Amino acid sequence: MDVNTEKFCYPLLKDALPAHEVISIEGGEEHKNLEACQQVWDKLTHFHFDRHSLLLILGGGVIGDLGGFCAATFKRGIDFVLIPTTLLSQVDASVGGKLGIDFQQYKNHIGVFCEPAATLISPTFLNSLPERELRSGFAEVIKHCLISDRSMWDVLKKKSLTNQDWNVLIPHSVAFKKEVVETDPKEGGLRKILNFGHTVGHAVESYFLSKNRIFHGEAIAVGMICESFIGWKKNLLTKEELDEISAYLKQIYPTVTLPSARQPILDLMSQDKKNKGNRILMALTKGIGQAVWDVEVSAEEIDASLDYYQSI
Amino acid sequence: MDVNTEKFCYPLLKDALPAHEVISIEGGEEHKNLEACQQVWDKLTHFHFDRHSLLLILGGGVIGDLGGFCAATFKRGIDFVLIPTTLLSQVDASVGGKLGIDFQQYKNHIGVFCEPAATLISPTFLNSLPERELRSGFAEVIKHCLISDRSMWDVLKKKSLTNQDWNVLIPHSVAFKKEVVETDPKEGGLRKILNFGHTVGHAVESYFLSKNRIFHGEAIAVGMICESFIGWKKNLLTKEELDEISAYLKQIYPTVTLPSARQPILDLMSQDKKNKGNRILMALTKGIGQAVWDVEVSAEEIDASLDYYQSI
Repeated sequence: MDVNTEKFCYPLLKDALPAHEVISIEGGEEHKNLEACQQVWDKLTHFHFDRHSLLLILGGGVIGDLGGFCAATFKRGIDFVLIPTTLLSQVDASVGGKLGIDFQQYKNHIGVFCEPAATLISPTFLNSLPERELRSGFAEVIKHCLISDRSMWDVLKKKSLTNQDWNVLIPHSVAFKKEVVETDPKEGGLRKILNFGHTVGHAVESYFLSKNRIFHGEAIAVGMICESFIGWKKNLLTKEELDEISAYLKQIYPTVTLPSARQPILDLMSQDKKNKGNRILMALTKGIGQAVWDVEVSAEEIDASLDYYQSI
Repeated sequence: MDVNTEKFCYPLLKDALPAHEVISIEGGEEHKNLEACQQVWDKLTHFHFDRHSLLLILGGGVIGDLGGFCAATFKRGIDFVLIPTTLLSQVDASVGGKLGIDFQQYKNHIGVFCEPAATLISPTFLNSLPERELRSGFAEVIKHCLISDRSMWDVLKKKSLTNQDWNVLIPHSVAFKKEVVETDPKEGGLRKILNFGHTVGHAVESYFLSKNRIFHGEAIAVGMICESFIGWKKNLLTKEELDEISAYLKQIYPTVTLPSARQPILDLMSQDKKNKGNRILMALTKGIGQAVWDVEVSAEEIDASLDYYQSI
């Protein structure tokens, strides 16, 4: 757990757990690195964890990715259970077995695919969540509707953030992601649709990592607007659909001020795990409710999409 | 590759390879750590390796374990090919998908199971190998005979190190290990027989890691003598079999002087990945040519076996 989940979430579980030791680390993306892994590995060693031990991971996406990676690599892998406590980690990181840490300025650059022994999701944890965290997680819920379910998008777009029905949306998102991931566990094809908004979004998130950090979902909202613009340019979306997506995302998310020099963001995109050779490949929506993947996108198109984002 | 294999082995392959970049790191167990991984990950990033890139790993066990771990964790895993250049790595590390690095004083404490895309073995590389390296690898060949094939042991024990027929022994060892590993990839049962000699051996090797380092096979030879003694004490071996094993190993391997205070070695054993809870579990030969696993061994028995080793 991290110092936050130790304070707000651990007390809700503590008495229900059998004998255990606590490993608490600093939270936040800036600590999702090798140094934190070394702290966890050191504690696991200190507590004499063996291959039959179980690591419960209580926290948001950072703790889940990092804790899972530590478990998956400690003595070549011990079992772990994810207990995601944020909306983002419940609807996204909790499914798919993607684990890892940041390296240098690259997000999730070092990691493995490894499934938890179990994942336990309770909406109760969302009560302790700051609104900005909730909004961040909501971006993935929106993404799942945009790439797979137009009717759910039509329901969702009529409501503000705080009026959403999480008891419907969380299972909807988890079930959809689970189906995609089980069809294509190693991201050979279909699973790539989940990367909609993430090529531009990750680069934007990475760009601000060392500056005035923005939340994952805030960056993905930027990415979804930019990549919808690119989709419109490629005749995958109508102008009306682009406007509908942009308007809703702009209403929910604060506008991020991008640097006028775009090269650092483009350079970050060239390190994207989805690329092949030197070509930048994206997943884009085709209309609303469907998606395609491995669409080659030029630096000029990305540049124009960032201009579009900043202009609206 | 490491600086040695770059000098002695790379020239044999270089002209046969397609376009490639070279990553060369310091060799030796003392560099099988996170710092070296960071160097490799940094180079892979620098060369813009993506998920479709291939890492060829040219070297002994250290390079194979570390390079494989780096590949298996870079962008959540890229393909790699092992080209083991030492006898030890050819008959042992090349099969089974065990990858990893040392952490603090613990060997292979951090790692994953992941199979290479291919493994290429050529006895040609052994010509450039110092005799001490050859002797180190020979310990695993001996182990494979002791736990699985009495008739091959009877052939092998009549010859000195330099008279062995590697064209027979290498395929014999690889085929045996491959069969065991495919039957039990995650070391749930049978595969544990490969740990014969390794509970005591790893602890002895770890003990000397920060001192006057000894080679893996030299430590495993100590381990096989000690664990054969424990097997005799547990009526798994006759006195004649114990004497036969000890005499051959003592003839091939120099005697290691163990510390008179045994606690540090026992403490290292308590971190062994094969343990369950606080019990120390070993794989032991049953006669010569068969083995059993998960045999609980007490600190006193281990202590007595170290005395035996030092007395003969």
